[in-house]
Amino acid sequence: MTKRPLTSRRFVKPSYIYLIEKKRDGGEFTQEEIRYIIDSTLDNEMPQFQLAALAMAIYFQGMSAQESAILTEEMMLSGEVIDLSHIAKPKIDKYSTGGVGDKTALVLLPLAVASGIVVPMMCGDDQEYEISSLAKLSSIPGFRSDLSVKDFVLQLERVHGAFVVQSNDLAPADAKLFELRRNTGTIPSLPLITGSVLSKKLAEGAEGLVIDVKWGNGSFIKDLEQAKQLARSMTRVGRSMKRRCVALVTDMNQPLGDSVGTSLELKEAIQLLKGEGPEDMKELVLKLGMEIVRLAGVAGSTLSAKQTVQRHLEDGTALEKLKEIIKAQGGDPSYIDDPSKFPQARHIRKLPAPKRGYVHTINAAMIAKGVHLLGAGSDDPKGKIDHAVGVSEIKKVGTQVKQGEPLMMIHYNDEAKLEQALEYFKSAYRLAPKRPTPPPLVVERVA
Amino acid sequence: MTKRPLTSRRFVKPSYIYLIEKKRDGGEFTQEEIRYIIDSTLDNEMPQFQLAALAMAIYFQGMSAQESAILTEEMMLSGEVIDLSHIAKPKIDKYSTGGVGDKTALVLLPLAVASGIVVPMMCGDDQEYEISSLAKLSSIPGFRSDLSVKDFVLQLERVHGAFVVQSNDLAPADAKLFELRRNTGTIPSLPLITGSVLSKKLAEGAEGLVIDVKWGNGSFIKDLEQAKQLARSMTRVGRSMKRRCVALVTDMNQPLGDSVGTSLELKEAIQLLKGEGPEDMKELVLKLGMEIVRLAGVAGSTLSAKQTVQRHLEDGTALEKLKEIIKAQGGDPSYIDDPSKFPQARHIRKLPAPKRGYVHTINAAMIAKGVHLLGAGSDDPKGKIDHAVGVSEIKKVGTQVKQGEPLMMIHYNDEAKLEQALEYFKSAYRLAPKRPTPPPLVVERVA
Repeated sequence: MTKRPLTSRRFVKPSYIYLIEKKRDGGEFTQEEIRYIIDSTLDNEMPQFQLAALAMAIYFQGMSAQESAILTEEMMLSGEVIDLSHIAKPKIDKYSTGGVGDKTALVLLPLAVASGIVVPMMCGDDQEYEISSLAKLSSIPGFRSDLSVKDFVLQLERVHGAFVVQSNDLAPADAKLFELRRNTGTIPSLPLITGSVLSKKLAEGAEGLVIDVKWGNGSFIKDLEQAKQLARSMTRVGRSMKRRCVALVTDMNQPLGDSVGTSLELKEAIQLLKGEGPEDMKELVLKLGMEIVRLAGVAGSTLSAKQTVQRHLEDGTALEKLKEIIKAQGGDPSYIDDPSKFPQARHIRKLPAPKRGYVHTINAAMIAKGVHLLGAGSDDPKGKIDHAVGVSEIKKVGTQVKQGEPLMMIHYNDEAKLEQALEYFKSAYRLAPKRPTPPPLVVERVA
Repeated sequence: MTKRPLTSRRFVKPSYIYLIEKKRDGGEFTQEEIRYIIDSTLDNEMPQFQLAALAMAIYFQGMSAQESAILTEEMMLSGEVIDLSHIAKPKIDKYSTGGVGDKTALVLLPLAVASGIVVPMMCGDDQEYEISSLAKLSSIPGFRSDLSVKDFVLQLERVHGAFVVQSNDLAPADAKLFELRRNTGTIPSLPLITGSVLSKKLAEGAEGLVIDVKWGNGSFIKDLEQAKQLARSMTRVGRSMKRRCVALVTDMNQPLGDSVGTSLELKEAIQLLKGEGPEDMKELVLKLGMEIVRLAGVAGSTLSAKQTVQRHLEDGTALEKLKEIIKAQGGDPSYIDDPSKFPQARHIRKLPAPKRGYVHTINAAMIAKGVHLLGAGSDDPKGKIDHAVGVSEIKKVGTQVKQGEPLMMIHYNDEAKLEQALEYFKSAYRLAPKRPTPPPLVVERVA
């Protein structure tokens, strides 16, 4: 533990009311004040109701770049900070704000490792719009993700990558603050999001971080401008903490790739690791992969970064790495060689297009909700996931369909659940007579 | 108790998070939502940390006139609402936001009663800048203010006025919300102030209310514009609850009258009830008194209102009413006839002017703080008050002084306390070579 006492002996603890009023009136906190708030949060000394009022004041008044950086650092230092300096390889992490059908982590991690990079990635739980990487990997028999920090570091030393659950030993102050924010309407505060994400990510021991900030109807960030602000906020804080940082702002106004589900997405990831798969996912993997290898210094130019990524996808080394990592974590790698081993749903039916036209918009959140209702999500870590269910062959925005043609295929095991899910799937699609302009996948690069 | 169930059976209780987010995003609450919030506050069902986040969201987003009126009404209906309809006289109450040296209640209440009006006034505790009327009256031996609601009503029937402590049976939801606001930096929210004050005041059974909104360095409202807004907010809500309402926005950038303390202020009040006393207090008593008698319908025109007020001051009937009320509450009325019976401080010394010039500004809050340090204040109702201490003969803004001439007289019993208090008294005064323009006492009338 790197928890430290307050630096200055002369620091006089302010009252919590003073701190609330200071932020309410637009004031800027000092480092010692932020440290005091975080220490008091961690020790449960600051009453929850005062912390709640403070969080709402921060929501309205924001934080300066410096406050945001201090907040992140203090939350990081509230717990264990992993030291990987003994591993003589570049260490780069990747983070996504989360989206529907996003299986990039499953591809990028082995791809980066194949490129000579250590990826100390801890994975979060399922979010509102996202099935977590760990939920997807749990469809492989034997696979376990609950490694201790010590075993996590050991695995990084041996195989250079791991898919493990977020450790409670990292940034415990954030966990407390996040729980409060979840219940007080203070999740969507840029400095608090930045602090929450980066305090954990930067405690994982990476020297650099590639961030995928998603905006759209399948992201918790609905507004493009806000996504750009978050990207800037995160890279700025990351840099101020001496980490190399790049963020891409990417589209989440329709599901990513062709499928949503656990083993369905894992199968798509395997395709992508063979250089195949749907175009949007291929593009995103390529672009994020290039950022990772450039940030690591593995490739200098854009061209060489592209070549590095493509080579490792096409020659199968990235796929081999995935198998190696899964095996190291107790999973049966034969599932990767033969994806037909994954359980199949008892029923597969199409979602028919109600009329002819072009797919105009897809509400990704409704697709996520429907797949969740089919049984693919777990609200708690012990929840039973149905690994066979989900949707595949999703017709994307701009695709022309005839009446009755499938908009997607629904994999299900339970008629009652299907009925519920269908409501969402049907409502998710809007067809129009004119071909829409599909939104650009990568909107902005923030470095 | 008039506590009611939720009116509509069809009302589906929203989650507290939904309510917080609705206000955070600038939404307007329905009557049922506000009732649900107040009911949940009263029953301790809404967690304090969610109520705190909601209060801060209200601080930033405000409330519409209608929301504010509903909030006030629902808080009022959370407890007992006194019915005085059986008393066949006009019933008018008076409220002041509080200020240093403000002894108007001690004068206005008997004055209104002498004018044929019932004044169902309950008094608050000491505030940051104000010694309460009850603390002042407690310098009279035998006086007791802790009447039950039943005895309060009985006294109103018999003597038409009373000085009693705020009953816990009135607007209990406000008491809970206020306690939270005090600790979360959400006191200075106009709709919450309005709701807090009026929910209690309007539960006291009056048909009309005269409000004195003070602004300045001795008020919790430092900003004139905010004071005007509060005056408008209160009169609007009062009217929407079918009460006649008038507010005066008045100056609190120096102490009111010549003295600050408990018995010192009571003595000044007795002077005023004889038509004597300092000019500013005389003016304020006259103006507020006129509003009360006009609101009661006792006097129609401005001229007749003025004559009514002046007559009752000059013919001694108002002073007699004060004695009658004090006697009814167990106090010794002979103190009113002979104010020299009040305890005297062992020492009286002057605060000398450090140079010649004009009194340019007086920080009233510092005077209040100094008097508090001398022992005149009580932080809790059982706190021991030194009734002899305080300051008198205060030189007001615009007065010319020679070096060494007294800026005021300090009444004290304890040298150590004097030392502390002197720091504040000295810092309170600014002298300047040019005569300043004294601020107007009554800035605006809001009806």
